[in-house]
Amino acid sequence: MSKRAAWILTLGTEVARGLVVNTNAAFLGRRLSQLGFVVEGAITLVDDRELIASFLSYVMRERNPSLIVTTGGLGPTHDDITLEAVAEALGRPLVLDPRALEMLREKLVPRGYELTRERVKMAYMPEGAVPVPNPVGTAPGAMLRHGDTTIICLPGVPREMEEMWLKYVENLIKDLAGVSVAEGSLVIVGVPEAAMAPVLRSLSETYGSSYVKSHPRGYELSNPVLEIYVSAIASAEEGARALVKEICERISGEAIRLGGSVKDYRCQP
Amino acid sequence: MSKRAAWILTLGTEVARGLVVNTNAAFLGRRLSQLGFVVEGAITLVDDRELIASFLSYVMRERNPSLIVTTGGLGPTHDDITLEAVAEALGRPLVLDPRALEMLREKLVPRGYELTRERVKMAYMPEGAVPVPNPVGTAPGAMLRHGDTTIICLPGVPREMEEMWLKYVENLIKDLAGVSVAEGSLVIVGVPEAAMAPVLRSLSETYGSSYVKSHPRGYELSNPVLEIYVSAIASAEEGARALVKEICERISGEAIRLGGSVKDYRCQP
Repeated sequence: MSKRAAWILTLGTEVARGLVVNTNAAFLGRRLSQLGFVVEGAITLVDDRELIASFLSYVMRERNPSLIVTTGGLGPTHDDITLEAVAEALGRPLVLDPRALEMLREKLVPRGYELTRERVKMAYMPEGAVPVPNPVGTAPGAMLRHGDTTIICLPGVPREMEEMWLKYVENLIKDLAGVSVAEGSLVIVGVPEAAMAPVLRSLSETYGSSYVKSHPRGYELSNPVLEIYVSAIASAEEGARALVKEICERISGEAIRLGGSVKDYRCQP
Repeated sequence: MSKRAAWILTLGTEVARGLVVNTNAAFLGRRLSQLGFVVEGAITLVDDRELIASFLSYVMRERNPSLIVTTGGLGPTHDDITLEAVAEALGRPLVLDPRALEMLREKLVPRGYELTRERVKMAYMPEGAVPVPNPVGTAPGAMLRHGDTTIICLPGVPREMEEMWLKYVENLIKDLAGVSVAEGSLVIVGVPEAAMAPVLRSLSETYGSSYVKSHPRGYELSNPVLEIYVSAIASAEEGARALVKEICERISGEAIRLGGSVKDYRCQP
């Protein structure tokens, strides 16, 4: 098992078709990285139960990650099949969860909505799951453990997902990765990406657990602008910050040596 | 093989980590759907050669899609390893392509840049690939066929990828799906998603090859606003348009019957 590996599954035909830009995966990728998880991949799939179950099984078997977060497919419509797919992948039955049903009842009944079959469907969860309250919308989330992996299923509507993540989920998983993370960034003007490549490669080799990435922002040849992002991991926060500072200083020294200039230097002291 | 199935692979640790929102997958998902492909999934992976090769192999083996489009990982830096991963997945050697080398030479030499090892790396392609010119940046794309699957590898910088897609790739693949697509949309105010669910389910069952999706935009219970998107496929464009019109009319009739109102009705006649 990779103790810090995390995967994100975005479920929804509308996302696969590009009708919606996948900001959920970006939000989760960023938050998980800041918590010290290594996000190895993010998979968007159409609303197809067997397809979702087979990819979930594949990721669990091949990568055995510490964490899988899914978004989407928890609502009342016929194509909301995430929890069915999770149950199938884990070989667990889907059972009516009384706590989830109570969450639905509290939201719906006072507003005069009936508990129709479509709405009660949102309270069926894989056996052993704990429902996660949804303070913004209707569908509860679900959290369960299978072997070494924690699986968290959240709704696809961004404001619901983000609120549930920040209010409930992040507190529950924040110590799972067991490391501290620090970040820094700088912008280099006047050095093409290809000229910085050997410098960044050598830094990546020297600082194995750190992450250094250049994003070309200008035009590679006529007006090269490189955004450099650095993050480092250590057992304590001070150690992670010291690593980021050291790497940022080495990058900016090399950039100046190659005839470039440094802007927007952001590294916590 | 699924004749119309397509997959999108986004390669780049910065995307998995959420430092960049994946607009490339949305652009490609939308364009591919409009060409009649069924985008089954979009996978973002960190820059890890073995991981990318294993997912590419898995998608080809399990889904045997007609088309796979990758973006990212074609540049000069040490973590640009897409073409190595493709070569590994297909069991082909990586060879220096003289056409790709010439494309690089024409861009770099007149501007006074040398053909360093990092830059020449961008001309190594899986055996049998055809380079795709990059009119905006430096790294050429690659296009190859393996069994039933066409694989297209494009750069990750959106303005490079989009220009190459629109200028070269789309023309080459536009007949591969062999169908016509039409789209329509409408907005329903005052009917909760759960109340529309049985209507949409029944329409999806009646019109098997069409796609009907509701996106909740307001608040499910207090102020329900539902965006409905409809697309249909037929062998000719008129047939696809007629199907979309029929489905949109049935949805808006049901919405009014349920006490809602219809806005922004957009269906081509």
